[in-house]
Amino acid sequence: MNSTNKPVAVVIGATSKWQSDGRNTKLAHGREIDDSDLPVGVRWGVGGAIAQKFAQEGFYVVLTTRTASNAFALENAIREQEGESMIVELDLVSEDSISNAFAQIRSEAGDPNVLVYNAGYLEGRDLPPEKELLEHMPLEMFETAQHISSRGPFLVAKEVLPAMRERGEGSFLISNNPSSLRGKKRNTGQSLYYPRVMMRTLAQVLTEEYSEYGVHVANVIIDGTIDSPGTRAMPRNQQNPERVINPVKIAEAFYYLHTQDKSCWSHELQLTPYPTKPSF
Amino acid sequence: MNSTNKPVAVVIGATSKWQSDGRNTKLAHGREIDDSDLPVGVRWGVGGAIAQKFAQEGFYVVLTTRTASNAFALENAIREQEGESMIVELDLVSEDSISNAFAQIRSEAGDPNVLVYNAGYLEGRDLPPEKELLEHMPLEMFETAQHISSRGPFLVAKEVLPAMRERGEGSFLISNNPSSLRGKKRNTGQSLYYPRVMMRTLAQVLTEEYSEYGVHVANVIIDGTIDSPGTRAMPRNQQNPERVINPVKIAEAFYYLHTQDKSCWSHELQLTPYPTKPSF
Amino acid sequence: MNSTNKPVAVVIGATSKWQSDGRNTKLAHGREIDDSDLPVGVRWGVGGAIAQKFAQEGFYVVLTTRTASNAFALENAIREQEGESMIVELDLVSEDSISNAFAQIRSEAGDPNVLVYNAGYLEGRDLPPEKELLEHMPLEMFETAQHISSRGPFLVAKEVLPAMRERGEGSFLISNNPSSLRGKKRNTGQSLYYPRVMMRTLAQVLTEEYSEYGVHVANVIIDGTIDSPGTRAMPRNQQNPERVINPVKIAEAFYYLHTQDKSCWSHELQLTPYPTKPSF
Amino acid sequence: MNSTNKPVAVVIGATSKWQSDGRNTKLAHGREIDDSDLPVGVRWGVGGAIAQKFAQEGFYVVLTTRTASNAFALENAIREQEGESMIVELDLVSEDSISNAFAQIRSEAGDPNVLVYNAGYLEGRDLPPEKELLEHMPLEMFETAQHISSRGPFLVAKEVLPAMRERGEGSFLISNNPSSLRGKKRNTGQSLYYPRVMMRTLAQVLTEEYSEYGVHVANVIIDGTIDSPGTRAMPRNQQNPERVINPVKIAEAFYYLHTQDKSCWSHELQLTPYPTKPSF
Repeated sequence: MNSTNKPVAVVIGATSKWQSDGRNTKLAHGREIDDSDLPVGVRWGVGGAIAQKFAQEGFYVVLTTRTASNAFALENAIREQEGESMIVELDLVSEDSISNAFAQIRSEAGDPNVLVYNAGYLEGRDLPPEKELLEHMPLEMFETAQHISSRGPFLVAKEVLPAMRERGEGSFLISNNPSSLRGKKRNTGQSLYYPRVMMRTLAQVLTEEYSEYGVHVANVIIDGTIDSPGTRAMPRNQQNPERVINPVKIAEAFYYLHTQDKSCWSHELQLTPYPTKPSF
Repeated sequence: MNSTNKPVAVVIGATSKWQSDGRNTKLAHGREIDDSDLPVGVRWGVGGAIAQKFAQEGFYVVLTTRTASNAFALENAIREQEGESMIVELDLVSEDSISNAFAQIRSEAGDPNVLVYNAGYLEGRDLPPEKELLEHMPLEMFETAQHISSRGPFLVAKEVLPAMRERGEGSFLISNNPSSLRGKKRNTGQSLYYPRVMMRTLAQVLTEEYSEYGVHVANVIIDGTIDSPGTRAMPRNQQNPERVINPVKIAEAFYYLHTQDKSCWSHELQLTPYPTKPSF
Repeated sequence: MNSTNKPVAVVIGATSKWQSDGRNTKLAHGREIDDSDLPVGVRWGVGGAIAQKFAQEGFYVVLTTRTASNAFALENAIREQEGESMIVELDLVSEDSISNAFAQIRSEAGDPNVLVYNAGYLEGRDLPPEKELLEHMPLEMFETAQHISSRGPFLVAKEVLPAMRERGEGSFLISNNPSSLRGKKRNTGQSLYYPRVMMRTLAQVLTEEYSEYGVHVANVIIDGTIDSPGTRAMPRNQQNPERVINPVKIAEAFYYLHTQDKSCWSHELQLTPYPTKPSF
Repeated sequence: MNSTNKPVAVVIGATSKWQSDGRNTKLAHGREIDDSDLPVGVRWGVGGAIAQKFAQEGFYVVLTTRTASNAFALENAIREQEGESMIVELDLVSEDSISNAFAQIRSEAGDPNVLVYNAGYLEGRDLPPEKELLEHMPLEMFETAQHISSRGPFLVAKEVLPAMRERGEGSFLISNNPSSLRGKKRNTGQSLYYPRVMMRTLAQVLTEEYSEYGVHVANVIIDGTIDSPGTRAMPRNQQNPERVINPVKIAEAFYYLHTQDKSCWSHELQLTPYPTKPSF
């Protein structure tokens, strides 16, 4: 319960597939990883870093995740930093789950002041080289990609924007990747990411529709590998640490957007490690 | 039956919401319209003009439509022009319908050499001014828009691309509108068109994946009002006839793309009436 | 003299740096190349192919070049194809040269119906690897790039657009390359091509300003190596002939643009060989 | 003299055409304006606000301007805020002036750590409605636009990038407007702004060339009217104060870019007042 009526920040997808016991971590390394020597800011990827940042700035943070236990360690870390948070289970594939989660959020935390949409998916990553072309992509994988990239943000927007519009303020921030910029070939080992253009397009639609009501909408393009237990343990990243983005700094970028003056809002922000050329 | 083994052109959405008895025509004018004095090239909008053009160029043309009777007049017109065509019922909302339709096409006409994706939808057009903002858009309308703009093209691509790839030639052409270029505010009276970016993005993906196999993929952006019985009868278009695009000429543009030399393919083509600034 | 009052097509830069005795040909191969066994359509690159195409279609073609002798063989080829042309010397670096050339064109051929801007330059191509970065680019090279890419098109536009506007018809077509799409790193061996964005931008400006007067403006992005005596002789192109664009087909694309119906003009056209991904 | 060896920020174009005695102010209002009741942060537009911000953050600020007296009041304001600055006369039209100015800067202040290119021009603004089309634009105006938008930034980049590259750090930030995004019609009363795409393109080139050396390059698109003595006095802006951007907040955005972590740099930032749709 948000008993002191702090402003509310909701992080959709607050945990990470690359956290110590995340799905990608287990897939890539065959086991969980000990993250006890990692800075607390990077242990749960971008979602966790954003949650910690907003907690530090005085927000009551709602951590959504499909399975509550995935977020226990993050919740503990926030508590140890003297922040406040709650975990809400939310499965973006289910309209009812979304609806129920936001009913709970409104009731126990209050209307969100900040919504960060940070959901991801793995679909397509396991397909072998002989299934690289789109004709081999199962419809089920496409549907999941659509649920996370297209229908999910649409439904979440419908949940939070009315109150933000009525109050005349709020931030609706999307955490995205360069696949949102245009359609490209999916290479073996990559997720089916072309539906992510819908997240960016929705941000453009909502920017035009809701800015005048004082709601700040932005699409953030994280243009590189994000530091986390699972990614840090990969040889490729150990050899090129300067190409790995510090999620604490990404979280600061989200906070910067939230605190921009209304007279000069940015609606897209791309974040690229200095040794690499920005994607386009 | 394609008894003389002509090359096959499939037009998904060969009829028009603006034909003499189309849904938009009835909506806008309150009645059907007599199209007997209109040139036969414009009576069924872009889909009908493309179908006639490819029939004239020696293709066996497959006309898909949700209800066969909608395409009878078009089929007759093609026959009178000494072309050949068949009607196949296809509902893009249904995976089974798509699958069955293409089984029938392959069996009765043969593997398509040209696929023109020309499907449209009206969802959102009826919403009143007080429901202009995205928060008022019913999920059902969004789902329909997704079925036509995103899932439909994905499923159709899966049906036709394997044979085109194996044969080393074929054209996969998408008929689109300027809403596919970026997300914008939906104004009252407009359809929910932002999911159309997915049609363009799919074209970009398939261009990168299938060009090397000899399959020509392109997105065509029709950047203005298309002549048809229903649109021609509107006062706005009668006052500005030079702003209305001749669908016969659009069909020629599709045919131009299909016949481009392999050494210099275009993968996007925008078509704008001369008195207006091109959309972007 | 255009004694039969044919429509007039002017090709700015009708010869090629890669023709048998062209500057690039000599640079790359150390000698001239015998082109007698090459199809006549490819001997003078894009400029020569466009000139031949418009001559074949009944235009009186004006070939501009810095030195008339560079265009003698092209002029002969056009005559042998029973076309008509004249050579006009024009140096894009000089305002007076541009002004004098167009005075001559207007006087001897008449006001241009079609203007194809096909000028190029080599500046930067000779810089060694240690001078790859922009800080090493001499101002003189930058100025030449600007003269060809920015000031030249501006001055040529001022020469031909007033008459096109008054007559209510005409085509102003720019022959460009992918460097016009965005700024990228110049790699050793490449020309200083980032000023070419100005050619594309001018096309966008003129499209918005002159379309309503019936003048068709377009930017054509030739997205690959063009066949010519000099390029065909390079090992890289002999090993990948399918990646080399046939200039005769590029010329057809220019003619297609010129003949598009006014109700559906394209203002940009990119031409990419099928084995390669389109630039962006 | 930068006697305490502060880091150096150079603002090219530190004064404003809209300051109390600026050229635009006099043009629009027929007189100078008393700015004594305006916050000191807005009195010299964006250039002045950036200069003050970096001075407050501990930089030694170099104010360049064509005529030193234009910057006296700004220099005083910085001194009163206990900042340090110097004025250097610089005329971007002259290669020698640029070269001499940077020789002086290097000698008296030191190699710049931050370079903000904030130069503007008025050319074209006075042309009457009958001279709206490009064919009426005098070459002299085009040349000035090129000097400021294209040749100037090229020459300035050559002056400052070598030292930044060698030192492995530095920021090269361009202050731009939405005309840099694509070519559009110039309407009567507007400056000839299409050459501004070259400023953005140069930023893209330098981003790809210099990021890996630790130099942060970015293009900032100021997407609205900037508060200043001259703009604030206009009726249009008094009626819509929420559409006027606070230059103090723009300056904070520049400082944010300068202080971004190297693992996640942004290379473009657009700043739009909340009641308006972002330009594209």
